[in-house]
Amino acid sequence: MTESNKPILYSYFRSSCSWRVRIALALKSIDYETVPINLIKDQGQQFSQEFQALNPMKQVPTLKIDGITISQSLAIIEFLEETRPTPRLLPQDPKKRAQVRMISDTIASGIQPLQNLSILKQVGQENQLTWAQKVIHTGFNALEQILRSTAGKYCVGDEVSMADLCLVPQVANAERFKVDLTPYPTISRINKTLLALEAFQVSHPCRQPDTPPELRA
Amino acid sequence: MTESNKPILYSYFRSSCSWRVRIALALKSIDYETVPINLIKDQGQQFSQEFQALNPMKQVPTLKIDGITISQSLAIIEFLEETRPTPRLLPQDPKKRAQVRMISDTIASGIQPLQNLSILKQVGQENQLTWAQKVIHTGFNALEQILRSTAGKYCVGDEVSMADLCLVPQVANAERFKVDLTPYPTISRINKTLLALEAFQVSHPCRQPDTPPELRA
Repeated sequence: MTESNKPILYSYFRSSCSWRVRIALALKSIDYETVPINLIKDQGQQFSQEFQALNPMKQVPTLKIDGITISQSLAIIEFLEETRPTPRLLPQDPKKRAQVRMISDTIASGIQPLQNLSILKQVGQENQLTWAQKVIHTGFNALEQILRSTAGKYCVGDEVSMADLCLVPQVANAERFKVDLTPYPTISRINKTLLALEAFQVSHPCRQPDTPPELRA
Repeated sequence: MTESNKPILYSYFRSSCSWRVRIALALKSIDYETVPINLIKDQGQQFSQEFQALNPMKQVPTLKIDGITISQSLAIIEFLEETRPTPRLLPQDPKKRAQVRMISDTIASGIQPLQNLSILKQVGQENQLTWAQKVIHTGFNALEQILRSTAGKYCVGDEVSMADLCLVPQVANAERFKVDLTPYPTISRINKTLLALEAFQVSHPCRQPDTPPELRA
């Protein structure tokens, strides 16, 4: 693959949805370039004409790969899974795949969208923290109960899956919003185990090309 | 399959996420029983102990099938696709599959969760309509632009796909919230074409076991 054919990830270091995709790319050893889209600077670079043409939802991540442009983190991960199947991020058994997708969607449709930047702007500064905490507590209560029946070492059994790619960035959001994680021992345990893996470390918000110096680690 | 082995769909007639799954079941000719969960009555039947044990997120739909219980509409549809592949709801080409999932997730993560019942409750009665309209306009602006490059007769080419199962119920929500659909000719055209198909009609909110008499058609 020549330099110009490298996949391009439009990403923001702190975006939890971008982090999901960065973990997938790292696990599958896919070499890529990052184009940072700063969601705060210039009143939001996601609103530029150029970026809107790539992603009309004006959100990150977006991935240019194999001649197409894909948005929505789970759609991107499913595409990577179908075209670069090793190591797999979905189990072989359809019932376990259903569990992985159920957990992924619980986070991607049931939690994250309700506490993302554009919603918090609408909620108003003084209510943001309470709103985000409430949304995450509701979601984590459900998730903790689900994981009690699906988890092994990771979210579903003992293999890293798409569900884990959603879990870790969502826990980071929870920590950013000062959510007390004591009521969620299963979530906390799995998160800690995953954070020890290299793919979760190199993709971490504190180690991206656009991470501000004061947040680097 | 004996009567007791029939899949059970926990559903609410007006839930757009339930409708997505009802369309999939109809298209794939899967016989099932409906257990209505009334999201309004008894202060919300989704909050009962019995239902929370099935779906800790306290949302519909939930499907009991093949000995497992699956929540999250897209996870359910992907499971049906993998276990009952005919007729297919995802194209064969991975790039087209990515488009289908991108459109599905744009609706399932980017629009619907921001205008569902639990969020509207938090927004407060006087702001509900404005909030829902804004969310849907933002999403439909993006969707219209995406569909201009992916659509044929339906959302992606000329085959009904999971994206179409998401589109029609979301347009129904838009109509319920009195969203002006004039700016979205592609969405409107595809919606109209899909509503003529039998699977979209038998699954329609106006024809469910729990549809109130005054809303039947």
